[in-house]
Amino acid sequence: MRETQPENAPLTLAIDAMGGDHGPEAVLDGAAAAAAAGLKARFLFFGDRAVLGPLLAARPKLAGSEVRHAPGVVAMEDKPSQVLRRGRDSSMWAAVEAVAKGDAAVVVSGGNTGALMAVSIFQLRMIDGVDRPAISALWPTPNGRSIVLDVGANVEADANQLVQFAIMGEAFFRALTGKEKPTVGLLNVGAEELKGHDLIRNAARILREADPDMAFAGFIEGNDISKGTVDVVVTDGFTGNVALKTAEGAARLVASWIKKALTNSIITRIGALLLRVQLIKLRERMDPSSANGGVFLGLNGIVVKSHGGADANGVKSAIELAASLARHPFRDEVAQTVAAVAKRAVNVRVTNQNSDEAKAAAV
Amino acid sequence: MRETQPENAPLTLAIDAMGGDHGPEAVLDGAAAAAAAGLKARFLFFGDRAVLGPLLAARPKLAGSEVRHAPGVVAMEDKPSQVLRRGRDSSMWAAVEAVAKGDAAVVVSGGNTGALMAVSIFQLRMIDGVDRPAISALWPTPNGRSIVLDVGANVEADANQLVQFAIMGEAFFRALTGKEKPTVGLLNVGAEELKGHDLIRNAARILREADPDMAFAGFIEGNDISKGTVDVVVTDGFTGNVALKTAEGAARLVASWIKKALTNSIITRIGALLLRVQLIKLRERMDPSSANGGVFLGLNGIVVKSHGGADANGVKSAIELAASLARHPFRDEVAQTVAAVAKRAVNVRVTNQNSDEAKAAAV
Repeated sequence: MRETQPENAPLTLAIDAMGGDHGPEAVLDGAAAAAAAGLKARFLFFGDRAVLGPLLAARPKLAGSEVRHAPGVVAMEDKPSQVLRRGRDSSMWAAVEAVAKGDAAVVVSGGNTGALMAVSIFQLRMIDGVDRPAISALWPTPNGRSIVLDVGANVEADANQLVQFAIMGEAFFRALTGKEKPTVGLLNVGAEELKGHDLIRNAARILREADPDMAFAGFIEGNDISKGTVDVVVTDGFTGNVALKTAEGAARLVASWIKKALTNSIITRIGALLLRVQLIKLRERMDPSSANGGVFLGLNGIVVKSHGGADANGVKSAIELAASLARHPFRDEVAQTVAAVAKRAVNVRVTNQNSDEAKAAAV
Repeated sequence: MRETQPENAPLTLAIDAMGGDHGPEAVLDGAAAAAAAGLKARFLFFGDRAVLGPLLAARPKLAGSEVRHAPGVVAMEDKPSQVLRRGRDSSMWAAVEAVAKGDAAVVVSGGNTGALMAVSIFQLRMIDGVDRPAISALWPTPNGRSIVLDVGANVEADANQLVQFAIMGEAFFRALTGKEKPTVGLLNVGAEELKGHDLIRNAARILREADPDMAFAGFIEGNDISKGTVDVVVTDGFTGNVALKTAEGAARLVASWIKKALTNSIITRIGALLLRVQLIKLRERMDPSSANGGVFLGLNGIVVKSHGGADANGVKSAIELAASLARHPFRDEVAQTVAAVAKRAVNVRVTNQNSDEAKAAAV
């Protein structure tokens, strides 16, 4: 079921070197760190040759990689429509184009999410049968990590789109981890069958009846995400984005409390010293950069969005994630499953209620 | 603007003593702890007299309080409609009835949320001009606490309902803290005007144009909640419920990591010993029971939902919250503001797009 490429197959990664708040230096440092950690890959760095040339030359770990000149830069405040019209000379455009042309297996960019999505849809096109792309995020759990999608590609999703997100997320998680049967849950306000929106209930019915191969666990609630109750958490982009950012905010608040506790007095500072090694591990666990990399799913090509604020370490994580996905392509599997489910779902009564009809109390 | 009652005015609280996973003993312990902490109030404990009588007699701190016999118990799995039809002999029903009749200023219950909401709407009725009730939750922040609503009374809310939630939340926060001008934000996926659902944009427009007295801060994102960016976070019940539970899950994961770090070895245990006082403070801060109490807003009477799993300490928090609200009624203020905004909003062009039209990409 899982198509893989040998670990030592030549791999080429397209890198938008001008995206991200820390500038091209952090991007190349991240690539060099990934290479130093054992990643066998050639990088194509897209951006201003005058800037990138010296940076590349100064990093022997990146020998074999090259700079491809693209002078334009997509700014964080640029609208996607502007970039589609006037951004064709940009590093982002050229990096995505390298995947579209087959020059690279995957593209990594820390630029403007909306623009990257628009440019990716325009150049790579959707997988047959998939209506809308989704952004998938890694989420730390006690057992490792889960994925959550959509975290912001669409503000709304109907039942069929949620079903497609589930299929894409399952294939992505399998590619990422090798787990044959990842478990999938639909994010809801209650685990009982009667709670939540009609459209989520419809999505659950379609998954249960039309995709018998999926290890579908039904509904989960917000607290299940960090518990790792399922491998793949499916939701619409509005809810997923709020959940992701809310969890980050809560974790950051707790971290600030910990810091306060550790630096309260001389005694606590000594205590903190004895805990030093464990506290470093804790900090690494809580470091958002270790889970950096939002993967755009549903396209004919792999696009990894690195966080705009990611440092070299964060870029390294995103690059390693991208390389791992490039070695385990899952596009054909998604297309086949989506088609099979759509065929079986013809016999499933599907009614996507509009919001007025779905106002039943959640309580 | 703020109607208050003197701190020493006689206050009577109706307590559903049979609700909650820890049983009536934890409920009466919580009330006794609140009394021991200085709360001047008389409690009416609703439930089985044979069970509650001895428990009350054994707690001298509760002298002056009384048991009112109500033999029926609402189970966690009972449907709201069942309870409305067959639950009139229950402790929950009788406790809410005490507020409806004016025997008590406020009711606290740890029972089934859906049933409590249905029973409360049935007996207390909505405030004039308010369409739907909302459940408001306390949320810890670096500066103290914010409130988030709705966290689960409704799975969806239209623009006008979000506006009503904002008005209710603002009045509630003022009653709770005494702050004259609480800041209010609408939860969205981006702070820019163009992001998110149409209905959230409509709600923002109505608030800006029709309630000039409100300190409305516009859109906020998930990570702003724990930062305390605004005092009152307004959202629909689906998103609010997911956000609340997701944050609880993330905080619990971090707490488990901290525990692991502290108990890793003899050295770390000694370190933890030196940090003991601060770690206890940290645990108290992270203890969900310290923020226990979901307040039902929009009804002609104050209903506080204690968490089903709350221990005596959690019940104490919910009772103290309830008493504080009983001393600062805000129902009339909500009715007046809702009416004034509805009047002004006639001139505001309001179009509630249905979900199909609102599918613009959020990115």
